[in-house]
Amino acid sequence: MSQEVKSQQNSELSPYEIITLKRDGEKLTEQQIKTFINDYSNGNIPDYQMSALLMAIYLKGMDPEETAALTQAMLKSGKELDFEGDLTSVDKHSTGGVGDKASFVLAPIASACGVKVPMMAGRGLGHTGGTIDKVESIPGFKAELELTDFFNMVQEHGLALTGQTKEIAPADKKIYALRDVTATVESIPLITASIMSKKLAEGALGIVMDVKTGSGAFMQKREDALALAKSLQKTAELAGRSFYYVISDMSQPLGHAIGNSLEMIESAECLKGEGPQDLEELSVHLAGAMIYLAGKAKSVEDGVDKAKAALSSGKALEEFREMIKRQGGSVDFIDRPDSLALASERTEVLAKQDGHIERINCKNLGLHCVKLGGGRRVQEDKIDHSVGLLFFKKIGQEVKMGDKIATIYHRKEQSDLVKKIERDIVERDVQISNQKVEAPPLIYETGESLSHKRKELA
Amino acid sequence: MSQEVKSQQNSELSPYEIITLKRDGEKLTEQQIKTFINDYSNGNIPDYQMSALLMAIYLKGMDPEETAALTQAMLKSGKELDFEGDLTSVDKHSTGGVGDKASFVLAPIASACGVKVPMMAGRGLGHTGGTIDKVESIPGFKAELELTDFFNMVQEHGLALTGQTKEIAPADKKIYALRDVTATVESIPLITASIMSKKLAEGALGIVMDVKTGSGAFMQKREDALALAKSLQKTAELAGRSFYYVISDMSQPLGHAIGNSLEMIESAECLKGEGPQDLEELSVHLAGAMIYLAGKAKSVEDGVDKAKAALSSGKALEEFREMIKRQGGSVDFIDRPDSLALASERTEVLAKQDGHIERINCKNLGLHCVKLGGGRRVQEDKIDHSVGLLFFKKIGQEVKMGDKIATIYHRKEQSDLVKKIERDIVERDVQISNQKVEAPPLIYETGESLSHKRKELA
Repeated sequence: MSQEVKSQQNSELSPYEIITLKRDGEKLTEQQIKTFINDYSNGNIPDYQMSALLMAIYLKGMDPEETAALTQAMLKSGKELDFEGDLTSVDKHSTGGVGDKASFVLAPIASACGVKVPMMAGRGLGHTGGTIDKVESIPGFKAELELTDFFNMVQEHGLALTGQTKEIAPADKKIYALRDVTATVESIPLITASIMSKKLAEGALGIVMDVKTGSGAFMQKREDALALAKSLQKTAELAGRSFYYVISDMSQPLGHAIGNSLEMIESAECLKGEGPQDLEELSVHLAGAMIYLAGKAKSVEDGVDKAKAALSSGKALEEFREMIKRQGGSVDFIDRPDSLALASERTEVLAKQDGHIERINCKNLGLHCVKLGGGRRVQEDKIDHSVGLLFFKKIGQEVKMGDKIATIYHRKEQSDLVKKIERDIVERDVQISNQKVEAPPLIYETGESLSHKRKELA
Repeated sequence: MSQEVKSQQNSELSPYEIITLKRDGEKLTEQQIKTFINDYSNGNIPDYQMSALLMAIYLKGMDPEETAALTQAMLKSGKELDFEGDLTSVDKHSTGGVGDKASFVLAPIASACGVKVPMMAGRGLGHTGGTIDKVESIPGFKAELELTDFFNMVQEHGLALTGQTKEIAPADKKIYALRDVTATVESIPLITASIMSKKLAEGALGIVMDVKTGSGAFMQKREDALALAKSLQKTAELAGRSFYYVISDMSQPLGHAIGNSLEMIESAECLKGEGPQDLEELSVHLAGAMIYLAGKAKSVEDGVDKAKAALSSGKALEEFREMIKRQGGSVDFIDRPDSLALASERTEVLAKQDGHIERINCKNLGLHCVKLGGGRRVQEDKIDHSVGLLFFKKIGQEVKMGDKIATIYHRKEQSDLVKKIERDIVERDVQISNQKVEAPPLIYETGESLSHKRKELA
């Protein structure tokens, strides 16, 4: 091989050549991915080249090593927290669902059991709500902490909750905005890198992932949810983190409450031992997994037992109360739910026939809340914390004509909209069968991988 | 079906939804393609959405109807000439090759036989030269005509040659610039729409297409060249035009001359009946097809006979002379080749072994001319008309050590470059075999389809 050819091979490829490789289904090297992401972050690669690469990735895929390299490149675009190998640092992430307020229940439980929980969460867009929007329905709660304050709070008290700061994986923010307008969102390697770049940046040594599937989830099909879970797991492994996933059901809302204030109230009820069974069960399972990854339990089952004990002893509720106080929030709503902003108008939705709940269009229930003002259609929308709905029935339950299916919380001027929502729920979103229907399982399957350090402990 | 669902189906899709459809391999409607192209032309769709769609088209393809709709949308972005159903209007297009100066020979021949030839051509980029660059080596020749002047000249005299004006298919210009930086050039539907939007805009009722294949062509593989030819043919059919294609060999230069002045001189020699055999044969064949499509011959063979007669009678040369004069050029070079700018330095490249020419890297020969300054690496490059090379040997020919393979025309200060080119030609670009080698055919295959009106005549 001549000297000239060699030097060409060693030299960096142009953005054009990198797009060409992926377009042709070739595997990109770590260096190629790093260069492309860095140059895009710095503004040296224009949006139109990035969107061509994103579409090529969407259609040709990326293997686990490429996905890990993409994750690292996006992670390195911003700051990283470092808990200096503290095994007890574990965070949880959900791929998003309707009525999913499990974070508010599991984080205090895990914290009560000695897990360090650096919880960074997002805002809602589309049919799913956002943890940060929900917690902001608590008067005074500061959900946008400075990164150092967040870090110190976790180190000192073991638990803090904040929105994603600008310093965390800024490349993800820029790339996500582009994916959102170029039809390149639903790609497993791109979703993986987006989620994991942020999760790894938080510095937690363990990550518990709740991958939702069903009519209210982004991954409606179970095989897609599992593929995403495996991809997330592989990326965590390559980054040396412990990882645990559940594939959980999102064919109906988790608990009853959909809407910001309503969900905070239900979370508090759950921490008092008075919450809906499915919310408690999932929260306790995920908290149990966190306790296990943190080395504070011998197995997930052992972790779940500890989680249940923390819940029934009231320790978890105490942690919840303390966290809210530390972040400037009022804890009044824990004992007086109506201290939160709640829409004064309530409209009940009644069953029009006897039977068993067969199917629920869970996404549509989430969208009703968005229409009422409880969520965002576009990023700039303002949130009304007071609106939403309580959905009472679960798949498999028997209903009689006239039974209350849901209560809509709304503003006075929304009566036309509410009539439409009422009709949609009864005629379109909820299917009632003449025959008995089996309830779906809450958790379909789980998987785990322990980091080297966690294995030593086991 | 409810009224609401119906109205949603009738309403226009967003750019996002159109990208999504193509991403998922769906067929786009004529209206969707039209809207997307119009909105992109008007600046209402940003480059990053167009590049995502282009990559999706590259990877998922388009069927003939989509390709035709894309062609029409790009065509309609600009002005169109209209020869009011004049069957005799026929143009020729080549997908580009090295040393391809056939247009200069076939256009006067066809014109001499009663064909109206509205010839719009491009400039060179990369390893292939451009017709407009070549003709501009004639002192005084105006190759950038106003559209109306061009039209009138064709109507009055039957032949004119101009560069693509800005008014013709401006969407193609904008899209091509984007394809060029997003690795979406080599796509048959996109190439088809790019070529055909411009060709249809010229208003010719017949189109003769020379699709090149081999080491000097864009479509190096014969099956790709054929697929492109069929796609171009189908698009022409859907636009109601007569169409004839040849798949011709570009595994070696056409004729001997590569470089602007050198190619004009060789074209004139050919019109005087003193040109290289391959150039004459291909030009006469393509002119024959034009004469046939124009209804001035019963068959391509009959057209070829008429073309040969126009060549040997000197009528074609006369047409050539008149066209140059009409467009302000000096015809001196026809009789005195050295009246064109020609580099004073000439370096001969000699064979280093005996044998038969087995293979030629034809693209590299084109790139040597670019390096000498005779072509463009990037669109902004200036052209030096005086440089280039004469390549004397054809595949299958016998050579003896010391035989002259090529003569390089260059500037004095280029001696280092010329040494490198000399070495490249001998050691890399031309392979000589000990055994006899068969010459490739000049034309691999042809195809035709006649418009409704042309069929009536037959």
